[in-house]
Amino acid sequence: MKLLVAFFFVLIFLTGWTQPAGTDYTQFVNPFIGTKKMGHTFPGAVVPFGMVQLSPDTDTIGYWDAENNRYNKKVYEYCAGYQYDDPTIVGFSHTHFSGTGHSDLGDFLIMPTKGDLQLNPRTADQPEKGYRSTYQKKTEKVEPGYYRVKLDDGNIVAELTTTERVGFHQYSIAETEDAHIILDLMHGIYNYEDKNVWTFIRVENDTLVTGYRQTSGWARTKIVYFAMTFSKPMKSYGHKKYDHSVYNGFYRKFDEEHNFPEMAGRKIRAHFDFKIEEHQPLMMKFALSAVSTEGAIKNLQAEIPHWNFGKTRKEAKQKWNTELSKIKVETNTLDEKVVFYTALYHAFISPIVYEDVDGQYRGLDQNIHQSDGFTNYTIFSLWDTYRALHPLFNLVQPHRNNDMVFSMLAHFDQSVHPMLPVWSHYSNENWCMIGYHSTSVISDAIVKDVFTGDINRALNACNQTAKYKPYDGIEYYLDLGYVPEDKNGSSVSKTLEYAYDDWTIAQIADKARNELIYSEFMRRSESYLNVFDEESAYMRPKLSDGTFRKEFDPLDTHGQGFIEGNAWNYGLYVPQDPNALIGLMGGKKKFSKMLDQLFSRQLDDKHIEANEDITRDGIIGLYVHGNEPGHHIPYLYNWTGHPEKTQERVRMICNTMYANTPDGLCGNDDCGQMSAWYIFSALGFYPVCPGSDEYALGSPLVKSAEIDLGNGKILSIIVENQSAEHVHVKEVFLNGEKLNTPFIKHSDLIGGGEMMFKME
Amino acid sequence: MKLLVAFFFVLIFLTGWTQPAGTDYTQFVNPFIGTKKMGHTFPGAVVPFGMVQLSPDTDTIGYWDAENNRYNKKVYEYCAGYQYDDPTIVGFSHTHFSGTGHSDLGDFLIMPTKGDLQLNPRTADQPEKGYRSTYQKKTEKVEPGYYRVKLDDGNIVAELTTTERVGFHQYSIAETEDAHIILDLMHGIYNYEDKNVWTFIRVENDTLVTGYRQTSGWARTKIVYFAMTFSKPMKSYGHKKYDHSVYNGFYRKFDEEHNFPEMAGRKIRAHFDFKIEEHQPLMMKFALSAVSTEGAIKNLQAEIPHWNFGKTRKEAKQKWNTELSKIKVETNTLDEKVVFYTALYHAFISPIVYEDVDGQYRGLDQNIHQSDGFTNYTIFSLWDTYRALHPLFNLVQPHRNNDMVFSMLAHFDQSVHPMLPVWSHYSNENWCMIGYHSTSVISDAIVKDVFTGDINRALNACNQTAKYKPYDGIEYYLDLGYVPEDKNGSSVSKTLEYAYDDWTIAQIADKARNELIYSEFMRRSESYLNVFDEESAYMRPKLSDGTFRKEFDPLDTHGQGFIEGNAWNYGLYVPQDPNALIGLMGGKKKFSKMLDQLFSRQLDDKHIEANEDITRDGIIGLYVHGNEPGHHIPYLYNWTGHPEKTQERVRMICNTMYANTPDGLCGNDDCGQMSAWYIFSALGFYPVCPGSDEYALGSPLVKSAEIDLGNGKILSIIVENQSAEHVHVKEVFLNGEKLNTPFIKHSDLIGGGEMMFKME
Repeated sequence: MKLLVAFFFVLIFLTGWTQPAGTDYTQFVNPFIGTKKMGHTFPGAVVPFGMVQLSPDTDTIGYWDAENNRYNKKVYEYCAGYQYDDPTIVGFSHTHFSGTGHSDLGDFLIMPTKGDLQLNPRTADQPEKGYRSTYQKKTEKVEPGYYRVKLDDGNIVAELTTTERVGFHQYSIAETEDAHIILDLMHGIYNYEDKNVWTFIRVENDTLVTGYRQTSGWARTKIVYFAMTFSKPMKSYGHKKYDHSVYNGFYRKFDEEHNFPEMAGRKIRAHFDFKIEEHQPLMMKFALSAVSTEGAIKNLQAEIPHWNFGKTRKEAKQKWNTELSKIKVETNTLDEKVVFYTALYHAFISPIVYEDVDGQYRGLDQNIHQSDGFTNYTIFSLWDTYRALHPLFNLVQPHRNNDMVFSMLAHFDQSVHPMLPVWSHYSNENWCMIGYHSTSVISDAIVKDVFTGDINRALNACNQTAKYKPYDGIEYYLDLGYVPEDKNGSSVSKTLEYAYDDWTIAQIADKARNELIYSEFMRRSESYLNVFDEESAYMRPKLSDGTFRKEFDPLDTHGQGFIEGNAWNYGLYVPQDPNALIGLMGGKKKFSKMLDQLFSRQLDDKHIEANEDITRDGIIGLYVHGNEPGHHIPYLYNWTGHPEKTQERVRMICNTMYANTPDGLCGNDDCGQMSAWYIFSALGFYPVCPGSDEYALGSPLVKSAEIDLGNGKILSIIVENQSAEHVHVKEVFLNGEKLNTPFIKHSDLIGGGEMMFKME
Repeated sequence: MKLLVAFFFVLIFLTGWTQPAGTDYTQFVNPFIGTKKMGHTFPGAVVPFGMVQLSPDTDTIGYWDAENNRYNKKVYEYCAGYQYDDPTIVGFSHTHFSGTGHSDLGDFLIMPTKGDLQLNPRTADQPEKGYRSTYQKKTEKVEPGYYRVKLDDGNIVAELTTTERVGFHQYSIAETEDAHIILDLMHGIYNYEDKNVWTFIRVENDTLVTGYRQTSGWARTKIVYFAMTFSKPMKSYGHKKYDHSVYNGFYRKFDEEHNFPEMAGRKIRAHFDFKIEEHQPLMMKFALSAVSTEGAIKNLQAEIPHWNFGKTRKEAKQKWNTELSKIKVETNTLDEKVVFYTALYHAFISPIVYEDVDGQYRGLDQNIHQSDGFTNYTIFSLWDTYRALHPLFNLVQPHRNNDMVFSMLAHFDQSVHPMLPVWSHYSNENWCMIGYHSTSVISDAIVKDVFTGDINRALNACNQTAKYKPYDGIEYYLDLGYVPEDKNGSSVSKTLEYAYDDWTIAQIADKARNELIYSEFMRRSESYLNVFDEESAYMRPKLSDGTFRKEFDPLDTHGQGFIEGNAWNYGLYVPQDPNALIGLMGGKKKFSKMLDQLFSRQLDDKHIEANEDITRDGIIGLYVHGNEPGHHIPYLYNWTGHPEKTQERVRMICNTMYANTPDGLCGNDDCGQMSAWYIFSALGFYPVCPGSDEYALGSPLVKSAEIDLGNGKILSIIVENQSAEHVHVKEVFLNGEKLNTPFIKHSDLIGGGEMMFKME
């Protein structure tokens, strides 16, 4: 008897019954933030860094503007397939980017319908003519790992949750003989004509369907496999092929459109038909794999071996809680707390885990590889994320960031170009944006002792990357010390970023004690000098003959030698040596004034319109927060002897550029970079120069924070006298010792302890 | 000293120096046979059952006739990509069918050129405008495993040899700065618009290139990977894309057309440029894999790790000698010997080995499988080859045929249709032709004790196959006992073949001692009775209401309930019970007269034209040898008491339908079936009913034969008094015992020994 009681208590202990429940941080996440205007986030179900992003698509409208060799700008709105104010839902697809400004994915759209079968979605102005449905905004419920909506058509309540590789659908449909699950393989985001390369469906049995979708878009050669299983047997199924004039061989022997278990073509929409009995929701699990349908089945069986939707939903929530609780903050207002945790949520969505449960993944060479000693990740939006997202990972996700560096090195090994990723997703280099910022991510991980691999291997990859002549003006850069605008556009941006990236390579060389490479790349890191025009005191496009180009509008963002920025924003990009930049631009006083001007001078309409991917709200004076090249600028005051101005600007940006509203992001979240900027700034410091050990201090927004550093240590941040009015930092103490400069070292923080800001 | 001498002799012994060289049987093979008119064989380099068929394509012209939902008939000529009389060569591609009447493949065309780069082949009437070249017939040299030609353009001597998975090219080009190897990924056989799904090229380094070609044609979802390597570094390379309006993303950053190492798209032609020095042929090895580029590289390294073209050529020849010497014949004339060994050569080309050197292969489910205890094969042209080719394999290639049966069972396991292969190639069921003749191949292998696997597994696969209702009228066949013409065309052919196939399943059930299935399928095997019209005494199309269709032309091959045959040919198809058929048709005398009429009555022009895939020479009276359904007919006399007429007809067919000339095949060789008919008939016996143990005797054409039965036993055939005039068989003795009937059992032959025909 006594034994039994003891056993009972052991049970209680093991199940955690006696532990007080921790704070539920998911309650502070509002996945709608960024779903309106240009945030490009999605509201659907995802777990931290999960491959599945199961989210409603309200539209993916887009057409390729062949004349201008670009997308019609209107489709930029649909990078994540969702706009908050849209009145209809097309269906729920399984892959999305979070916050990008160009797009792809939207694979495997599922839509539940009732009654007469409609296989075409039709357009938002005529939803009744297609399977698309209207919905009432108030029926939408979103929380981390869970999404619910009631579709007006058929009165269907759709609920979605997910694991890393398997989406879980639950559809409550009133009793009917005619329920359908539509699987639209033609659907996709940025789905211009001929994007589908091949699609394939196999009805393995009456509850299991496998297949794949192969596309050529932003990822030029992409394939994703699936395995989907239903909670009850389908009674019939079929598909329609929308291909024009495709040879169909001897398949014409069959009635291929009905109950024929192998469907293949370029444009296919399939349906699976069910009889629904009362009080029996139709459930569906949908697994992804980049390897094979066999891999998808493996993932399906490993991750959700049951039909308990609530269990998976609860586990998804727990996963988020585990990640979100790595930074426990108190704030002045609830909205600030929601903005903070939603930023953390958005920061932890990508890169995504990109391997099967057994570690198999598709490499850059399109062969199947086994991840050996690391977890393979994809979606590297590096021009954005090297700035603050990966440094944030070094602080609170060191193990994942280490895996990400290993993933980048695997990319290098598998790529036929001797280059680390530039912008990569789904086994493809898409070459988007500029620079070779993998070197920054790698050097930051090495300098901060996060990377556990071979430094020389990393150095070799970076060294080769920085010398690959066919890439984006490198040939000229190596020769002239700058990218000449007449040979290669956005030449100033490129020169500045190459110079910075070169500095990060030098840091790796330093760690590897390779003096030759160190001095070579330190030399290269001064290349920014070559595009500085002393006369105008601007960074300015230079021609291959060594002269600066005459035409120059420092306010314009197009054709001025910059990309997604202008001379005012982008021209201040020398993070590896702000002092030198300041010297170049006339000294601290002049530079500080210039920054004042930057934040106060009004941009005219013409120049505002020229900014891509951001809302008008994303601009303060000439400072554009809605895009990345200026993210370090508010912190530059620290180098001019005016840290109080950094504090003012940072606090102002936190308060005006982020909000707990659907349009609460002032520009693309860019896979978490915009959010990571906020997280650092709200905590009171920011990595102006990744690859260095240094943070610049700002003005914390939180009242307190506990940061789990992932090494068993906790860094507590205490902000005394915090309020909306107390923006200025009077003093900062680290473990009781007062700081004498507005800078702090990562190595000083990583041991944990207490950092106290006294505000005034 | 003594020891050394002894060692020397041991060496001699081990190296075979002391052995007299065996007969070179490859000297009796003329790969040109069948390359003119409708034989559809190819003259290029191939090893026995090898995956690579490296052969010149003279044209592949074809267009899809959308109006009639079929290919323009003219392209039928180019099923193997080659017509003997064509004046130009487009290039050398790596995959071909041997003798089919529909087509696909022609993957990876390579063409060496010199001087100005031309990336378009152009047409045969303007070869000078493209990379295509004229050639002189006399410069062509063909032998098993080797092909040579001199291309007029650039005076290039091209030599080709191969292993199972790796083609070996040797191009002798005079000294030049401007030699090119063109890799045309747009090229293919039966290459209608949009057949290319996706193609991909990676220049791994300056001597290694990998990639793949993915098509949707006869094989609806096909992908073949390659790895090619050059004997010297290329100096430059490039490609052109012929896609219309394909989104090219951020690749536009690069000069993709020149020296950019990753090329991808739907329509690509690439070139690799070389400087050629004197007396240095440019060599190239080209490996295939259905698994991955990694697999192709593995195959490349395993099969040809050197650059010795002569060595590979010699080994290819040896491989052929090993296979050809399995039947050693002497004949009356050299031409007969050449026809015989060329038939054996053509019989040993397909099915092809379809797995990487490590046993990995792509299954029907498109997943990668490991062959476990067998070698995986593909290209199963079963409607043709079950008749005589697989029975021939049971006689002289038992191990391979066993592997083929295992491959068919793997197909069954992997297919989403519960069916064994119908007509399958490259991980696809193409559904061509009719019946489910895998059951015949399997039962023949079981009855002849060749199959080493689980008989119940085989029986289950056959049983399920024969009951798959969506397939080709099975639903009605199960219900009515025949396929009704108003529901499903070619209904008489189908009914007759299903009945036969059912009989073969019964034989497996018998072996498995499964009485239930045995009696079920024996019952089904009598279904031929249901389409016999007593009134007209023809097998005749019946309608679903049980009446025979009124319109009926027993001479026509179209719309009369038959496929590739008419009531005269196809209507005699009851191989499982010729006696019953004869009884049905009025008894032996009447039937024998009917056969006489069949072989003598002249078909009018209209009805000759209606025959597909055969030349006018392929017809004797109403008997059509150029197509398969009647291949057993000459042997049916044996059941009427007139074996002498079988002997006359068979000898006549051997002499008139086969010849040592390019047009020496009177119809499609159909993956070796036409050749296998010849081999059996020339040896003096034929498997009228595969799945039974019985051969019908005919009139041997050879003077003697030694057949290596693959079990350590030799069967000698001795033909006394053999000559062109002595067509009739007076007596036959097996191991000294005189046979009393014109039939003999496989089990009597398989122990080896001597079979003596006395001719008169």
